[in-house]
This record gives sequence, C-alpha cells and structure tokens, in this order.
Amino acid sequence: MSAKTIGYVGLGIMGMPMAKNLVDAGYPVVGHNRSRDPVDELVEYGGEGAGTPREAAAKADVVITCLPDSETVEEVVLGDDGVADGLDDGEAVIDMSTISPPVAEALADRLVQKGIHFMDAPVSGGESGAIEGTLSIMVGGDEDVVDDHNDILETLGETITHCGESGTGQITKACNQLVVSGMIEVVAEGFVFAHQAGADLDAVYDAISGGSCRGFVMDHHGTHMLDGDHEPGFYSSYMYKDLSYAVEAAKEYGAPVPTTAVTHELYKSTIESGYGQEKNTAVIKVLENMAGGIDVGGDS
Amino acid sequence: MSAKTIGYVGLGIMGMPMAKNLVDAGYPVVGHNRSRDPVDELVEYGGEGAGTPREAAAKADVVITCLPDSETVEEVVLGDDGVADGLDDGEAVIDMSTISPPVAEALADRLVQKGIHFMDAPVSGGESGAIEGTLSIMVGGDEDVVDDHNDILETLGETITHCGESGTGQITKACNQLVVSGMIEVVAEGFVFAHQAGADLDAVYDAISGGSCRGFVMDHHGTHMLDGDHEPGFYSSYMYKDLSYAVEAAKEYGAPVPTTAVTHELYKSTIESGYGQEKNTAVIKVLENMAGGIDVGGDS
Repeated sequence: MSAKTIGYVGLGIMGMPMAKNLVDAGYPVVGHNRSRDPVDELVEYGGEGAGTPREAAAKADVVITCLPDSETVEEVVLGDDGVADGLDDGEAVIDMSTISPPVAEALADRLVQKGIHFMDAPVSGGESGAIEGTLSIMVGGDEDVVDDHNDILETLGETITHCGESGTGQITKACNQLVVSGMIEVVAEGFVFAHQAGADLDAVYDAISGGSCRGFVMDHHGTHMLDGDHEPGFYSSYMYKDLSYAVEAAKEYGAPVPTTAVTHELYKSTIESGYGQEKNTAVIKVLENMAGGIDVGGDS
Repeated sequence: MSAKTIGYVGLGIMGMPMAKNLVDAGYPVVGHNRSRDPVDELVEYGGEGAGTPREAAAKADVVITCLPDSETVEEVVLGDDGVADGLDDGEAVIDMSTISPPVAEALADRLVQKGIHFMDAPVSGGESGAIEGTLSIMVGGDEDVVDDHNDILETLGETITHCGESGTGQITKACNQLVVSGMIEVVAEGFVFAHQAGADLDAVYDAISGGSCRGFVMDHHGTHMLDGDHEPGFYSSYMYKDLSYAVEAAKEYGAPVPTTAVTHELYKSTIESGYGQEKNTAVIKVLENMAGGIDVGGDS
C-alpha cells in the first residue's frame, strides 16, 4: 500500500511544522492556507499547493485541519469550496484543532451522512511538540478508521490516546484544559494569599511543592509565576477560548463546573486587562490587580 | 544539656502517636487531655499525667499543643488553668494544631508579652505520618527559638521547613490547603464533565494524567474518585475547617480567593450532604448530586 496523499488545511504555528514532518516522512502533502505565503513555504519544502480547501481535498485521501476555532473548522470543512466537497466516499477528515466538543460531534454526524469518516484529534504539547513530533494526541473516531490512520498520527505525535467515538478527543482535551487551568489559577491564589500575608514565597514554595500540591503545574507554572516570567508558552487568550468551549459543553452535557466558571471569568479579565498574549500564568496578574497592584514575581 | 521535659496537650489521633514518639526518643513527657483515658494510655506507655494544661506546663520546659481548632488552642493556652499560667519566662509553646493564621499571630503576641516563646508548627502527612514520625512540619517562630527546639521537631517529622516569624507556619499550611483543595475540586469537575459527556473515564484519565495535569492529586485523589473510594484519609470536615481559616485569613490580609471561596462552599455542601466523615475526595459527590445523582466511581 502506498502512502496516503494528505491534504493539510491551516499552515499556522502548529500546522506548518506538522505538515513539514509529514513531508519529511515521505507523505505527499497538498497544503492550503487562507493567506498564500505559508503555502509557498510548504511548496518550497517539497509539498504541493492548493487554492481552496476543496482543491486540497480533491487531490488527497485524507485531509488534516489545524485551525483556530469551531467556526473556522465548520466553514473550511462544510462551507463553499470546502473539504467535504473535495473528498470521495470512504475518505477521511482529521481535525487537529481544539474546538467545541458538541461542534465536533455535529461535524462527525454531517460528514458520516456524506460517507466521509471524521476523527477529532486535538493535541497538547505546543509549538515545540509540533516541531519535534512529540505531541500528545487525543483521538476520537471509529476504531477501524483510527487504526487506518495511525501511521500519520504517529508521525505527528509521541503519545496517541484513542479516547472513543468521534467527539471524545475534544471532550478529553476540554477536560484537560478545565483541570489544568483550575490548577494554575489556584496556585496563583495561593501565592497571592501568601504574599499578602507577608510570608516569604520561596519558603512557602519549598514547603508546599514537595507535598500534596506537587506536580507539573507547581513545578512549571508555579515557578514561572514566582519568577514573574509570563513569556509564552501557551497564550492566556487560547486558554480562555478552550475554557469557553469547556463551559459551553458543560452546559450542553449537564455538568456542573462551579470553579471552572470562575476561572473562565478570570481568564476573560486576563485578556481584558491586556495580558491575552502572555502565558496562561498571567491570570495571576488579575489577582495581583485585585489585591491593589502587587507583584508576586517581584518577591523572589 | 539534658533533654527538655515536654508537656503535651491534646492526645488525639495525631497527638497520641507524636507524644509516644517523644517518649521513645527519651524525652520526659507530661500529657494532658480533656478526657482521661488517653492520659492513662500515655502514662502506661512511660509518660506522666497532668490534670490541667497548667499542671503539664508547670512540670515542663516546653509545651506542645495538638488540638482541633483555634478556639480550643486559645482556651488551652490562655484560659484559666492554661498553659501560659504554668510556663516560666523564656520557656516555649509549640502549637502543632492547624488554626487560623491571624489567631496564631495574636497568640504569639500575647505570649511574648508574658515572656514566653511561641512557635506555630502545623503538619501535613496525616495519622500515618504522625505514627511513623515522617510528618512535614511548617514552622513559624524566631530562628534562635526554632533552632533550640529542632531536636524535638526532628523527632516528630521528616521535613522541617522554617517559614519565617510566628504565624508563617499557619500561613504556609493555609496556602497548602487552599491549593490542594482547589486541585482536588477541579479534578472532580473534570471527571463529572467527562462522565456527563459520555466519555470513557479510564481513557480520559490515561490521556490527562500523563500531561500537564500530572501530579500527586491526579495520582491519588483522582484514582480514588474513579474507584469510588472515599474512605478516610483526611476528612472532608477537616478540609472545610482548614478552608474556613484560609478564607477568613484571606479577608484579613486582603487577598482575593475567587475559586477558593467556591471550593469552600462546596466543602460546606459536602458536610451538609452527610459526607463530612468521608475523605476530602467526597466533594465530588456534591457535583454528582448537582448533575442529577450520577456516580462517577461506578464507571470504572
């Protein structure tokens, strides 16, 4: 069996290095992007270019989309000159964007009606993971279909988890973002509390980071907050978008999210306060402003 | 220098094994407890008994208190027949209870006026840590005074962190409880969300526990929730008490605690729903009830 031809729509910060990794692995890749420069860059790298999502899909056996939000994915897949118009019966879409779980489920239903397979496959691991091919990929879709595209997924990521039917990849991603943002936010509350109480934050960090609070968030986000280092990383604006999807989905599914609703509001304030393009740790700045303009990062 | 004689007030689940460890280490220990049976048990173990906190203090060079709440500590230390009345100038109180940080600071001030040293030294590590002498102890107090009692602290715990002046031990403990409870609560929200969305919770756990959510809370509290295992462990009612101190202290210090305030309310509901004597993971039952009486632990 020869390698599948892959249509790749969305050659951004994440999509471009993923498309290049597919070229490196020997796949024919036909790229499309709303602006033209990234398409030229991919062609120079050894790919092929397409003027519309439909054209990329027509030349391909499977189309990967890597786009900023639910609306864009719906438009690119189902809109005029969209991916669905270019694919044949039995071909597939892999959406690696992070979008709303109910939108992903609806998209899967629409495509199944057209005889097209759909996998939702959002990732974590960021730009460096995309470049190095070490992403964690959470996949929802029929087992046979996922198996049939495993070679592609393994080219792009290191940890591939098949979470269940279509939509469960986005549900798992939303769950991850909900939990990690809550952990980041409450670590920020803890540091602002300790600062306001007049404690030495380095001593507090030493005491609590070795106990029941220990883990990735304390080690990474916690130390970045104490260092006042909010260079991205993962933008606060992206975390807000992901939490918006989680909160909307929670309403749809009938799940109570009392603290996530508050964290979602705090990320909204993070953006409104002008910190949207800083790392997701910048939520601490909202708390610092609430406390009268303190700077926890200045303590250490 | 011969070993200090230690008064020990509060021979409960935590206090009794700590007092016995001091006897084992060769310290003369004079125990007092509101009810008499634990005093008899300590005497049988090789300690001495006292009828009042004052009597224990009068026979001792340093008094350790290990009591349920702020009010009891204030009463035992400063009340009639209290510890302060029995100690001489330059002797010391080590309060190993978890109490309100501002109360600890006020207690320190009152004792200093009487010429008595005060250290707040709350612990984490639970009953097993108390029995095995492996507690983590967060100490606030003058450096010289803490150094002078380090042999005692090292008999009781494995990790001794000197956090700063009097009160900073309780501030650090409150910060720890605020952060860990928020982490537990948001993991609970994540699992209830994933359950309501129809996802396979074992797959969700596998996908998110290896990534940015990884750590002690996910490994321990997370798996206990998925197993439906809420055997104590650390009672939900104790977590509620600790959070009450944190929220009160946050008001006193001018620290915003938007998600902790919600988590505090959810632990109140945990108690009001009859789960106070279950482990602090039982907060998930409040969310399960809010979602219409589901059982996440029944999924796995």
